[in-house]
Amino acid sequence: MVMTPAISLPSLVARRRPGHTLEAPFYTSPEIYETDLALIFGREWLFVGPSAEVREPGDYFTVDIGPTSIIVLRDDDMGLRAFHNVCRHRGARLLDAPSGMLAKLVCPYHQWTYELDGALIHAEHMAADFDFSCHGLKPVHLRDLAGLIFVCLADEPPADFDALDRAMRPYLAPHGLERTRVAHATDLVEEGNWKLTMENNRECYHCATNHPELTISLFEYGFGFAPNGANADRAAAIDAYARIASGFEETWERAGTPWREVDCLTGCAAGFRTQRLPIDRAGESQTLSTEVACRRLLGDLTEKRLGGLSFWTQPNAWHHLMSDHAVTFSVIPLGPDRTLLRTRWLVHEDAVEGVDYDVERLTEVWRETNAQDAHLVALTQKGVTSPAYVPGPYSPHTEGLVEKFAQWYVERLAAHLDGAAA
Amino acid sequence: MVMTPAISLPSLVARRRPGHTLEAPFYTSPEIYETDLALIFGREWLFVGPSAEVREPGDYFTVDIGPTSIIVLRDDDMGLRAFHNVCRHRGARLLDAPSGMLAKLVCPYHQWTYELDGALIHAEHMAADFDFSCHGLKPVHLRDLAGLIFVCLADEPPADFDALDRAMRPYLAPHGLERTRVAHATDLVEEGNWKLTMENNRECYHCATNHPELTISLFEYGFGFAPNGANADRAAAIDAYARIASGFEETWERAGTPWREVDCLTGCAAGFRTQRLPIDRAGESQTLSTEVACRRLLGDLTEKRLGGLSFWTQPNAWHHLMSDHAVTFSVIPLGPDRTLLRTRWLVHEDAVEGVDYDVERLTEVWRETNAQDAHLVALTQKGVTSPAYVPGPYSPHTEGLVEKFAQWYVERLAAHLDGAAA
Amino acid sequence: MVMTPAISLPSLVARRRPGHTLEAPFYTSPEIYETDLALIFGREWLFVGPSAEVREPGDYFTVDIGPTSIIVLRDDDMGLRAFHNVCRHRGARLLDAPSGMLAKLVCPYHQWTYELDGALIHAEHMAADFDFSCHGLKPVHLRDLAGLIFVCLADEPPADFDALDRAMRPYLAPHGLERTRVAHATDLVEEGNWKLTMENNRECYHCATNHPELTISLFEYGFGFAPNGANADRAAAIDAYARIASGFEETWERAGTPWREVDCLTGCAAGFRTQRLPIDRAGESQTLSTEVACRRLLGDLTEKRLGGLSFWTQPNAWHHLMSDHAVTFSVIPLGPDRTLLRTRWLVHEDAVEGVDYDVERLTEVWRETNAQDAHLVALTQKGVTSPAYVPGPYSPHTEGLVEKFAQWYVERLAAHLDGAAA
Repeated sequence: MVMTPAISLPSLVARRRPGHTLEAPFYTSPEIYETDLALIFGREWLFVGPSAEVREPGDYFTVDIGPTSIIVLRDDDMGLRAFHNVCRHRGARLLDAPSGMLAKLVCPYHQWTYELDGALIHAEHMAADFDFSCHGLKPVHLRDLAGLIFVCLADEPPADFDALDRAMRPYLAPHGLERTRVAHATDLVEEGNWKLTMENNRECYHCATNHPELTISLFEYGFGFAPNGANADRAAAIDAYARIASGFEETWERAGTPWREVDCLTGCAAGFRTQRLPIDRAGESQTLSTEVACRRLLGDLTEKRLGGLSFWTQPNAWHHLMSDHAVTFSVIPLGPDRTLLRTRWLVHEDAVEGVDYDVERLTEVWRETNAQDAHLVALTQKGVTSPAYVPGPYSPHTEGLVEKFAQWYVERLAAHLDGAAA
Repeated sequence: MVMTPAISLPSLVARRRPGHTLEAPFYTSPEIYETDLALIFGREWLFVGPSAEVREPGDYFTVDIGPTSIIVLRDDDMGLRAFHNVCRHRGARLLDAPSGMLAKLVCPYHQWTYELDGALIHAEHMAADFDFSCHGLKPVHLRDLAGLIFVCLADEPPADFDALDRAMRPYLAPHGLERTRVAHATDLVEEGNWKLTMENNRECYHCATNHPELTISLFEYGFGFAPNGANADRAAAIDAYARIASGFEETWERAGTPWREVDCLTGCAAGFRTQRLPIDRAGESQTLSTEVACRRLLGDLTEKRLGGLSFWTQPNAWHHLMSDHAVTFSVIPLGPDRTLLRTRWLVHEDAVEGVDYDVERLTEVWRETNAQDAHLVALTQKGVTSPAYVPGPYSPHTEGLVEKFAQWYVERLAAHLDGAAA
Repeated sequence: MVMTPAISLPSLVARRRPGHTLEAPFYTSPEIYETDLALIFGREWLFVGPSAEVREPGDYFTVDIGPTSIIVLRDDDMGLRAFHNVCRHRGARLLDAPSGMLAKLVCPYHQWTYELDGALIHAEHMAADFDFSCHGLKPVHLRDLAGLIFVCLADEPPADFDALDRAMRPYLAPHGLERTRVAHATDLVEEGNWKLTMENNRECYHCATNHPELTISLFEYGFGFAPNGANADRAAAIDAYARIASGFEETWERAGTPWREVDCLTGCAAGFRTQRLPIDRAGESQTLSTEVACRRLLGDLTEKRLGGLSFWTQPNAWHHLMSDHAVTFSVIPLGPDRTLLRTRWLVHEDAVEGVDYDVERLTEVWRETNAQDAHLVALTQKGVTSPAYVPGPYSPHTEGLVEKFAQWYVERLAAHLDGAAA
């Protein structure tokens, strides 16, 4: 009323200081949260889940992106489709369950009925001249990237998803995600802004102290380190990492598995990065034992010791694909200071629970890691809410991908704001 | 901040498309909710409960209309009065219970004491020149329509309530609501805007599938149907309804009970509609058996098979009066997406629970029906909150009264906005 | 949107009517709440707790003042310090517990480490030219008034705290608060604006009816009464009070204990008032028995029958110091209609629980009294939220200190608003 002269969003975007965390309003302001929903989650490609969630005709799941609820389903021709979850009559939500199976979409209010392709086929008591063809479900753009479902709420989705698609298919192909099923699913609410969840994901500077389970298999050095200032123990560990990594590179080359880093995290709408990373000890999987958690390997793989393919997309996802299982992560804002993290563990569709894998063993590392990260995100949200908070410096060695996330975010906001002004 | 250029309320009102649901902000905007409280609930006549809730001197109940809490009480002369529930000293809420009995109104904070007519009679420690007569409770306009209590928070209530009063007394009189008592009361919170609760009440298009208990006694055809397009089964059912209805009309004429539809739902401030409707099977009451639930009939009635008198008022009520009991409904907004539904079941004041009636049997139909409607309202609130929602078409055959509700609402908003501008 | 033309804060301040409660927005408006945080809690001296909460090096407690979290700690040199609870790296909250003990401040996120004087001493992976000296914890102004800790969030705290300090030390000294420890602590959330909590504290007009436990020891007449209009019983009680009070004055003079009223509640930033008041019956302490609750007296006191020193500070505290124990109260806003009341019971540091005192007996009066006041505050919040609420008159005889609180509040707002405009 008195003390908070409104700083315009374009000014905040323009004055963002590279190499530093964002200014507080980006994490706390309800207005910027609404802008994020409109300009980022309303216009960019979003990862919403693996296609393994909808394997048969009529299978569906729903996902709420801010106030927008969408239905993702498998149609009668085995195609994937997404629709807005709103009846065209009185606006009722059509499907209120997180997932399920159906033959037609029937609104519970007045039984307006839609085909799986969205066409309205039944609406009683309407006028003689009522036009069914104008009242089908509103479609949402959908892309199936080798078993990973992306949607875009905009009328005109960013075109450069094609480049992402071309680049990533060879990396994803060996893991055959199209032939997986969901072995386990968790939906975790984190008490922080979605960008803090993303920033947390983009570095492993916090791993050594906070993730005792994850760092059994994952090398913190895979994401960078300070070249100077390391003590003797640390220098030895870094050398050891380099030796192990080059051993893996030989394996990947021999197996014909793409592994080199591709980094398009900034300068594009469909920003992404991928890299195949060594796994410590047995080298097989992100498990407590570092061995595979599922005996039936993914796709047609026969080599267990493949390390892990990491795949990150802007603005809201990351994935880890090992020889035996994959884990997908989708980040959905719930409010300025609340975020949903949807995690899905995938195994080969022929793998049998209790025979080929044990759910507890398959999921324990990332269930613990997610809970630890949620705690860190909540602490950060509390801190940046203080008027005393000022942007702090990212480490140039271990927080480079955080900087790229922040940079992409600011770039995209600026582009959309320019577009709106034009 | 960027994507939601504020659309002015007058523009939204002016561009409302007849025959269609309202635009989303009417159901979701906090600002329009505040406007509804100020211009609709702050200026129109509101039904708040039957006079049967306050039968003896000193009996009171409280009701919160948005941030406004009022006390309705029976005074020492058996008159009904309403006051603002605010002490004139430091502003404390005087009565915090939903109902009770008292001799004087004593503020719990510093014991300022008021008579049942609102006069301040005790305030210690005040200055010698303190004027008690300037510090009485603030009164609220109240009308008792044959046992139904309406209040108006405005300084100048709409005058056309007189016309409603004159029209309705003959219809209500045979049911003798002044000589009833409350057999059961429920306060149900619905997770939707109050207008969705009202729209849901104004049609029975949704009844056949959603209200298995109610439709045992109530004909869905009583509220209209499509003349064309009905299949043979449905045509036969409609014919059967017409025959039953005309049988009831003979009964009503013979008994001298007013029954013809009166519809003043639009074009007036105190909008209302009434109609006596047949009841199926035994024809007596809205019960599972369709027979009376109370052996002692209302007023001086002797004919059990009277169908049901339905009485709707804008903006916030409806009632069903049968030969043996009546059910009143009062709708009170709690927030943009939360609404209170207060339901009261009335029986003759001489009826004895356990002898003349059983509460479970008396109330089961509307308890179930209310719960079913609350679910539909919540689904609709979720749906219209989506940016993908656009107004949909009402059925001209079964949703005519919904259209009249929407039309009245928009008319009244326009009138008040014009008044504010003038 | 339509009915609430925004009234500017300066207008509301300028038109405040002396001798009356504040207008509703001061108690209910989210904008004025934010202003209170910025201009009152952001700029004035605030009492946050007794130094007895941090007795040893490394002891700390945290307190959240609106969105600002601060750490109060005892450093290695036994000094008291306050810091913002925000890591200078990514902004995480450093300490999430209400209190504890530590050797260094280590951020849980990436292990940035600070000394107890706030200096950053460890931050891994940063660039070679990273300047540790620019990334220490942000300090907060702190004053230790004879064992009572005040902080100020402003860059330039009000200077007249010095006058308060000089005036109060002689009154506080005999009670030796620096040599106490916390026997019991409660944090109570009241459902009302912080100013209603303060107004409630500033009068005892409500005591007789609402505080049966407190009024055993405390005379309601100590805070004023109407000279006229009292009945015979009351006149006799007032005379009795005067006799008892003058007896205490002789005791205080004999003991050399300062007792005369000092009232600087208005016209200054660091507003305060003190007065030593008689205690009824045994005259020793604010307990149910009116006798001391702790056998070991405070400081070097030997006289048990000392009545009670009351000490009030604007904007957020009051304290009662008896011969055997002291009770401190700190009021912290949580929202427009939610307030935290932190109460601490202090006894001599050598007193032994179970031997010298019993916690139940020590605390029962103020635990009950706080709960009763919380109820009254909640009722008042509900009442002033009604659009029907209008400011009411304070009693000139019993609500003079309430008026002074309101006057100070409005004075300070006006001064800060003028400063902002200048």
